[in-house]
Amino acid sequence: MKYKFIDGGVTAPQGFTAQGVCASVKPSNKTKRDLALIYCDTLCNAAAVFTKNLVKSDTIAVTKAHLSDGKAQAVIVNSGNANTCNADGYEKAEQMCSIAADVLGVDAENVIVASTGVIGEVLPIEPIKRGAEAMRGKLSKDGGTNAAEAIMTTDTVKKEMAMTMELGGKTVTVGGIAKGSGMIHINMGTMLSFVTTDAAVSGEMLEEALREAVEDSYNMVSVDGDTSTNDTLAILASGKAGNPEITEKNDDYRTFVEGLTAAFRMIAKKLAADGEGATKLLVCKVSGAKTKPDAVKISKSVICSSLFKAAMFGADANWGRVLCAIGYSGADVDVKKVGVSFKSSKGEITVCENGAGIPFSEERAKEILLEGEIEVLVTLGDGDACAEAYGCDLTYDYVKINGDYRT
Amino acid sequence: MKYKFIDGGVTAPQGFTAQGVCASVKPSNKTKRDLALIYCDTLCNAAAVFTKNLVKSDTIAVTKAHLSDGKAQAVIVNSGNANTCNADGYEKAEQMCSIAADVLGVDAENVIVASTGVIGEVLPIEPIKRGAEAMRGKLSKDGGTNAAEAIMTTDTVKKEMAMTMELGGKTVTVGGIAKGSGMIHINMGTMLSFVTTDAAVSGEMLEEALREAVEDSYNMVSVDGDTSTNDTLAILASGKAGNPEITEKNDDYRTFVEGLTAAFRMIAKKLAADGEGATKLLVCKVSGAKTKPDAVKISKSVICSSLFKAAMFGADANWGRVLCAIGYSGADVDVKKVGVSFKSSKGEITVCENGAGIPFSEERAKEILLEGEIEVLVTLGDGDACAEAYGCDLTYDYVKINGDYRT
Repeated sequence: MKYKFIDGGVTAPQGFTAQGVCASVKPSNKTKRDLALIYCDTLCNAAAVFTKNLVKSDTIAVTKAHLSDGKAQAVIVNSGNANTCNADGYEKAEQMCSIAADVLGVDAENVIVASTGVIGEVLPIEPIKRGAEAMRGKLSKDGGTNAAEAIMTTDTVKKEMAMTMELGGKTVTVGGIAKGSGMIHINMGTMLSFVTTDAAVSGEMLEEALREAVEDSYNMVSVDGDTSTNDTLAILASGKAGNPEITEKNDDYRTFVEGLTAAFRMIAKKLAADGEGATKLLVCKVSGAKTKPDAVKISKSVICSSLFKAAMFGADANWGRVLCAIGYSGADVDVKKVGVSFKSSKGEITVCENGAGIPFSEERAKEILLEGEIEVLVTLGDGDACAEAYGCDLTYDYVKINGDYRT
Repeated sequence: MKYKFIDGGVTAPQGFTAQGVCASVKPSNKTKRDLALIYCDTLCNAAAVFTKNLVKSDTIAVTKAHLSDGKAQAVIVNSGNANTCNADGYEKAEQMCSIAADVLGVDAENVIVASTGVIGEVLPIEPIKRGAEAMRGKLSKDGGTNAAEAIMTTDTVKKEMAMTMELGGKTVTVGGIAKGSGMIHINMGTMLSFVTTDAAVSGEMLEEALREAVEDSYNMVSVDGDTSTNDTLAILASGKAGNPEITEKNDDYRTFVEGLTAAFRMIAKKLAADGEGATKLLVCKVSGAKTKPDAVKISKSVICSSLFKAAMFGADANWGRVLCAIGYSGADVDVKKVGVSFKSSKGEITVCENGAGIPFSEERAKEILLEGEIEVLVTLGDGDACAEAYGCDLTYDYVKINGDYRT
C-alpha cells in the first residue's frame, strides 16, 4: 500500500482551514449549516471536473472562468438552492465569490463557487453575505467538519476523507469532503466534492491526475440515473508538503494517482451508501470482460437497474434481473458464459453459472442479502478486463423523499 | 380519421378465435388464467419484432424460426414462467408449439410461442399440456378476453384493443391484446403483444407496417428503464376482410400504418398507465425539436427520470427535474429556449419559459397534477420535430412489488 487512510477531512493537508454556518439560504432552515468556506493560506494549483448535463448551474461557468489560469485559493459553497435555471444565476455566483474574497482577503478570481439544492428558485444573496461575514476570522482546522455538514442536502451522513502517502521522501496529505444523495448518476464530475492536498503538483499534472482518478471512482456511482446539473469536483494543491513538484508522469505521479483513486473510491462508496432512501450499498464487480468499456457498461447497467435495486431492498436473490441488465447493457458479452454470485460479510453464494440458474439455498441467500453492503460478482469468461460500480437499493424512502422534495 | 376504435380484442377480426385457462404453470397459482391460445381458421401472413436484450428467452428463437417463412396460424403463451436462462429452454418452447399444434390441428411450424414471468426457473411442461388439452374445441370469439387475462403477470388490468378502417372499399378490423407492467423499457419490441387483423397484406408489407407503427408507439414506453428478455410483438393477418391485398406502399398501406400506429399507441398508453405500482399515466410531448431523434431522446429522458417520476407521484410541479432530464438526454438543444407546461383534465399551467422558472400558482399546479393522466409539454423552439413518450409515476408500490417479486 502506497497510501494510508487517516482521520480528518478537507483541512487535513497543510495550509487549509475551513468553516460552515447556518445562513438560512432557505428561509425555513433555522438550524442546519448551509454555507461553507474553504481557504488556503497560499495560492494553489487547482483543477476541476463538472457535470456533462447540458443544463448547468451558472456557478459552473463562474468556476470555470476562475480556474482558467489553473489557480485557486478558496471555495464558497451553499446548500438549499442550486442557483440553476435562474436568469440572474451568473451574477449571483460572481457575487458569492466577491463575498468570499472580501471575508478571506483573497482575489475573487481565485475563488471557486458551487451551489446545491432546488433548481429554478432565485438565490437570495443577503443570507450568504451575513453567513460569510459570521465566518470572518473563524476558519480553522476544526472547521472542516462544519464545512462538510454545510454542503449536505438530503444526505444523512457527512462525507469526509483524509489520507497520507509518501512522495519523494515527504509525507503528503490529501483531504476531502463531498455531498450527494439523489440525482446521482455521475458523468465526468460528481455531485459536490472538494479535495485538498499539500502535495506539490504542477497545474497540468494535477488536472491529469484528477481526470484519471475520477474514472474508476466517481464516474462509477449511480443512485438514480439522474445526472445532476451542478456536479463539481475540485481539487486544490498547496504544495506545502515539500515533495519535489510533480511535473511529469513519473513514479510519484503514479503513486499520487493511485492514492487519489483510492481516496475518490472511498468517497464514491460513501455517496452510494447514503443514496436517497438507501438501506444498502451495492457494489457490482465484473471480471473476465472482453474490454474495459464492456466491463464498465455491465457493472453500471446492473447497478442502475430499478428492478435489481428493488430486489436488493427485499433481500431477494433474483439473479434473473442481473442477467437481464447485462443483456441490455450494450456490452459485447457471451451470455452463455455468465456467472453470478452474491457476497456480504455473511459469506458468498453462487446462483448462476453458464448463463443459467443453479440450485441454491434461498435461506442462505437471504441471510447474505440482509446485510448492509452487498457485492454482486459477475464473471464473464470473455477476457480479463474488470470494473466495479457503486449504487444502492431502491426503497420506499426514495419515493417518499422525492415525491415532495420542494416543500 | 381513417380508423375507428371499437369494442373487442384479439378475436375481433374475421377468422380468429382464442381462449385462456388456469394451467397452474406456477404450482401456487390455483385460480388465475395463465395459458392462452390464439387461432386463425386460415394460414396467415405474420411478422414479429422482439427485444433487443442480448439475454433472450428461447421462445424468441423458436418463434423466429417458425416465422422464417412469414406464415403463422396460432399462438401459445404462458405467464408465470419466462422460460429464459434455462438450459432446456429451446426444447420446452418447441414442446409448447407441438402441444398447441396437436390441440388446434395445425402445423407446429406455424405456431408462435411466448412466455412471461420469472427468469431462470425451469418451465414445467405437464401443466401446459393439461391446460392446452382443456381448451381443445373451446376456442371462441368470446374467449379473446380470457386470453388477455392469461398473459397478465403483475398487470392489474387486461389490455385489449380493436379498431376498424376502410381499405379498398372494405372494412378491415384490427384486434390485439398485450401484457406488461414491470421491466418495461421497450426497444424494438414490446412486452408481450399479439395483434390480429383480417386485412389482406403481403408478408413483406406486413413486416414493414409493423416496424413503422412500432416506432412511435411501443418504442416510446418506459416503466422502469429495464428492457425485458421476452419482449415480443407479433401480428397475424388472415386476409378475410376481402380488401385488395396490400403489396406496395400505396394509400391503403399508409392508412393501414396510420391505423396500426394509433392502435399500438392505445396499447402503449395502457401499458404505461398500468406500470407496476403506477397511480398516473405520464405523457411527455416534445415539440420544436431540431430533429426527430432529438425529440425522441428528450421525451424518453423525461419519462425515464426516477426523480421526475417520483415528483409526479407527489403531484409536485418540480419542473427543474424536467430541465435536468432534458440536459442529460444527449439531444442537441438550446436550453435557454426551453418551455415547460403541465396539463391534465383540470387545465394547463406553464411553469418554465426560456429555460428559467416563471411565477405560477403552486395550488393550481397541484390541482392539475392530482389527476390520473398528466401531460408534460416541452417546447424547444429549435425546429419543428416532435415526439411523445409514455410512462408512469414511481411509487411505494413499485418498490413493494419488486422488493419481493419471486416469493
